[in-house]
Amino acid sequence: MPEYKAPLKDMDFLINDVLDFESHYKTFPEGEEATPDMVEAILSECAKFCENVLSPINQSGDKEGCVLKDGKVTTPTGFKEAYQQFVDGGWQSLSHPTEYGGQGLPLSLGVLKSDMIGTANWSWGMYPGLSMGAMNTIYMHGTEAQKQEYLIPLTHGTWTGTMCLTEPQCGTDLGQVKTKAEPNDDGSYDISGTKIFISAGDHDFTDNIIHVVLARMPGAPSGTRGISLFIVPKNNVNEDGTVGEFNNVSCGSLEEKMGIKASATAVLNFDGAKGYLLGAENKGLECMFTFMNTARVGTSLQGVGTAELAYQGSLPYAKDRLSMRALSGKKAPDKVADPIICHADVRRMLLTQKSIAEGGRAMIYYVAKLADTMMYGATEKEKEQADDMLGLLTPILKAFLTESGLEAANLGMQVYGGHGYIKEWGMEQIARDARISTLYEGTTGIQGLDLLGRKILLGGGGSFKKFTTEIMVFCKDFGLLSRNPHKKNMNQFIWPLFKHVAAWQQYTVRIALKAKNNRDVVGSASVDYLMYSGYITMAYFWAMMAQKAYEGLASGEGDADFYKAKIQTAEFYFERLLPRTKTLADTMMASTKSVMQMEEDHFAFL
Amino acid sequence: MPEYKAPLKDMDFLINDVLDFESHYKTFPEGEEATPDMVEAILSECAKFCENVLSPINQSGDKEGCVLKDGKVTTPTGFKEAYQQFVDGGWQSLSHPTEYGGQGLPLSLGVLKSDMIGTANWSWGMYPGLSMGAMNTIYMHGTEAQKQEYLIPLTHGTWTGTMCLTEPQCGTDLGQVKTKAEPNDDGSYDISGTKIFISAGDHDFTDNIIHVVLARMPGAPSGTRGISLFIVPKNNVNEDGTVGEFNNVSCGSLEEKMGIKASATAVLNFDGAKGYLLGAENKGLECMFTFMNTARVGTSLQGVGTAELAYQGSLPYAKDRLSMRALSGKKAPDKVADPIICHADVRRMLLTQKSIAEGGRAMIYYVAKLADTMMYGATEKEKEQADDMLGLLTPILKAFLTESGLEAANLGMQVYGGHGYIKEWGMEQIARDARISTLYEGTTGIQGLDLLGRKILLGGGGSFKKFTTEIMVFCKDFGLLSRNPHKKNMNQFIWPLFKHVAAWQQYTVRIALKAKNNRDVVGSASVDYLMYSGYITMAYFWAMMAQKAYEGLASGEGDADFYKAKIQTAEFYFERLLPRTKTLADTMMASTKSVMQMEEDHFAFL
Repeated sequence: MPEYKAPLKDMDFLINDVLDFESHYKTFPEGEEATPDMVEAILSECAKFCENVLSPINQSGDKEGCVLKDGKVTTPTGFKEAYQQFVDGGWQSLSHPTEYGGQGLPLSLGVLKSDMIGTANWSWGMYPGLSMGAMNTIYMHGTEAQKQEYLIPLTHGTWTGTMCLTEPQCGTDLGQVKTKAEPNDDGSYDISGTKIFISAGDHDFTDNIIHVVLARMPGAPSGTRGISLFIVPKNNVNEDGTVGEFNNVSCGSLEEKMGIKASATAVLNFDGAKGYLLGAENKGLECMFTFMNTARVGTSLQGVGTAELAYQGSLPYAKDRLSMRALSGKKAPDKVADPIICHADVRRMLLTQKSIAEGGRAMIYYVAKLADTMMYGATEKEKEQADDMLGLLTPILKAFLTESGLEAANLGMQVYGGHGYIKEWGMEQIARDARISTLYEGTTGIQGLDLLGRKILLGGGGSFKKFTTEIMVFCKDFGLLSRNPHKKNMNQFIWPLFKHVAAWQQYTVRIALKAKNNRDVVGSASVDYLMYSGYITMAYFWAMMAQKAYEGLASGEGDADFYKAKIQTAEFYFERLLPRTKTLADTMMASTKSVMQMEEDHFAFL
Repeated sequence: MPEYKAPLKDMDFLINDVLDFESHYKTFPEGEEATPDMVEAILSECAKFCENVLSPINQSGDKEGCVLKDGKVTTPTGFKEAYQQFVDGGWQSLSHPTEYGGQGLPLSLGVLKSDMIGTANWSWGMYPGLSMGAMNTIYMHGTEAQKQEYLIPLTHGTWTGTMCLTEPQCGTDLGQVKTKAEPNDDGSYDISGTKIFISAGDHDFTDNIIHVVLARMPGAPSGTRGISLFIVPKNNVNEDGTVGEFNNVSCGSLEEKMGIKASATAVLNFDGAKGYLLGAENKGLECMFTFMNTARVGTSLQGVGTAELAYQGSLPYAKDRLSMRALSGKKAPDKVADPIICHADVRRMLLTQKSIAEGGRAMIYYVAKLADTMMYGATEKEKEQADDMLGLLTPILKAFLTESGLEAANLGMQVYGGHGYIKEWGMEQIARDARISTLYEGTTGIQGLDLLGRKILLGGGGSFKKFTTEIMVFCKDFGLLSRNPHKKNMNQFIWPLFKHVAAWQQYTVRIALKAKNNRDVVGSASVDYLMYSGYITMAYFWAMMAQKAYEGLASGEGDADFYKAKIQTAEFYFERLLPRTKTLADTMMASTKSVMQMEEDHFAFL
């Protein structure tokens, strides 16, 4: 199994050189404490925890998996202890409000933390990750009493939380939710129904679990407008805050999955469990949208983490493994053969992984800044604009980065040849763990519809215009009249980027026009459109990183080799990955007929 | 788990309408018995065996896996019994020479058989599959005595065989083989060494296993020129042909793999095991090339089988699962939601799987005819030409179809959403099983080098010219002056196909010229060039199938719906998959600098 090393140098480059977190943190009170020294100290401590505690139990966690016996779930060896260390270190509360037990550091710092945790051990990270989903939802929609009762212990990590949305008959289409909430005289509800795919749904970390559950009240309107949100603790909470008796939330079974085996995916049975309305009646799905954006950005971290870990796994192997001679002549004449990193195709695979990991990380850190602004912005308008931009970029990040992560994971195995298929090396686990990322929190297809249908076409395209304009402005800084000293160097990136953004705008208008006459255009184009958007978005960040690397080189300070490698990776990205837009532009504009014309009964003749 | 149904109608369309096996079988003596009635009877019997015996033990085989205990390997429940039924039915001997116990039917018929077996249960199919590798090698290079002693029981299926090439330090680069062959006075050799990744290396099907082993004699030249091939039985064979005492070939361990868990992948220790030279001294690797082409075409079947099985698994789910409403309006107003097959993106995924399965099958069946000609051709020249063409198409089939198969398997999971990740449904097993296909029998990278480097650039490009000319001639039949009645219908396929073939020829020349000055061009372009070649090759077969479907429709005979669906699938392929050549043409022509310039030490700064 690849041992995880936190890419602190790369993170440092992003937060200091590229995205200037220091200035950003000065713009809102919650950022004040996050001085560069403080940030560096936090990241390096977190890196140690991830490298020394989480990474070593990643492979064993996969092997052992979670076990349900006599109604109790046991997590793999070391998982519970790691959680205790995590809580003791104050890691769960890092970027949560001080008024409810948090340390009040910026949200974005929490994203950096999650990046490292998720890469070191994604399965483990899902337990505190789901808690955060519950915490955010209660913070946004809970009453003060609910926050006192549930949010504080969740923030401390004394308890964990879950999000209970999916049922056997529905995941995407939550309007079909059947779980019932019958009102009691005391204002509580009796919750009954079955929820599936509940990550961190049961475990042995803590003595209580706070479930946030979608359910339907008697007489509620059918479909999505009749769904409400409830807080349902696994065990009731006594008035003094201690854990009381069992609340009839039982784990019916754990799913046997392809990967993330150390993450307990529970079937939860609610048998008249006591629940408390969270937010307004029948507004459950709207409340969920806040959670979903956060959860989706969180899931996009899995794409980047997958690419990073696969790259960290395949690079040393590519340097060690001797096979054949390089086509251009012996590179290691003293050895029986050359290391496979000498072969162009192996380099192509490594650089693809590297481009995805580093380019994706830049995209997420940029969005993390937006999340800060959405949360702590000085004005409502500023918050709203950040929220809109986040809404646009979230489906791109979620789907494009997880799809790209799968590609990187597969290349990780491919670099190993046949050995990549053997468990011992750990490369196949990365691919199995990663495979869930394009399925949960909205499949790639759903993200495509969210981006093109909801965020761009229904939403009027405001944030799309704003984002593409931002890229145009970036390009102009290297344009004809510019005196930017790196203009010449940057030419190789700016010109293709500019052309791509112009094309992106034009295609978007064309699709919008086509969709007016034919609604199927949206579904038929959406996934290819999303991937197209993803490649251009990533190109923007690669160009930005190249610029900062040129500036770094010119300054004579910092690590020149690091900067050179950045520029070379940007060159690889522009020459080898960005051209994928060519095909995508074609297929996203293809006729709907090619997908819609076949009659259902004619798909197979068996 | 999807229950496998043999796609007999599609197979029938290919062998009768598209590829005219009937006329083909009349051109050589071994084909005489393979009358249409006979072929149909064989295929339908084989389909029953695959559907009723092999398919039901595919999922349980994955769950149970193979077990090594006290030196003995036990295969999953039902595997041994299925093998006995297979042998009793005469299936192993189907297309092998009558003089050594076979039924003498054409090789191509064996490919059709393997297609069904491999799709129903790939892991099981590897046991008889590896036997065929050993059989072919002994048939081609063995002495008459060796054929009598080993080939006949292998053909009957009384014993099975393996190919022992890989060692811990080398797989691709067999020049590094260390296993030793010390000559004995009686003409035999003592074989000592460790072989890994030996498929069907040990099992409980038969009481002997015949290993074909690469090893090095004392004083042999270093590298690939000093390797010889040996027959090494697991147990010695007595003079009367019965199984004698243990020959010191022991199974050290079984690999724990991502998938194909029911296939025993053995580490074999040869401790002075008695072996017999097969073919000429130090010519082992050359002898292997025959085997490799067959094995690689065999592996390409895994790509097609994967796509077929994934498609068969996801289609019924797409019809059953209700989620959301179609964008163009309700399709099932009486239900809570529409079946997901109404959604454009789900259709895109299904049609991608279908295009790969059916297009890939056509490619393989075409190559199966070439294999017949190579084997039974009337003249040496005819045989040689078929061999050359097979040499060209083999790497394309192996790499392009297995990569495409992986894509189809992933889409199969994707159609299921989160359920695709759960073992119970069987879709994730398809993806895990398929993942080996781009790794063994030469990775995709190796196939790329074989195609571009060996077959086209070193080989002078003769068969490439011949194949592209064949496609050009096909296109001309619908050209300006043609009176072909389907000219108008075929326009949508012929014009893009023609342009693509012309571009393929031009790019090939350009790469050849570039490679003269810079050897790295080959490795840098090879995989993208191979995939590019694959999409164009598959387009040729889709155009051919569309033509036959139009003819079928015009004839008023046959199933009009089937023909229409074929044409619609061809349209999908041309609109949605063929445009991938656009990106590939770009990236295969990209500079070598983008992959070669980074210094080894600059790939990471951790």
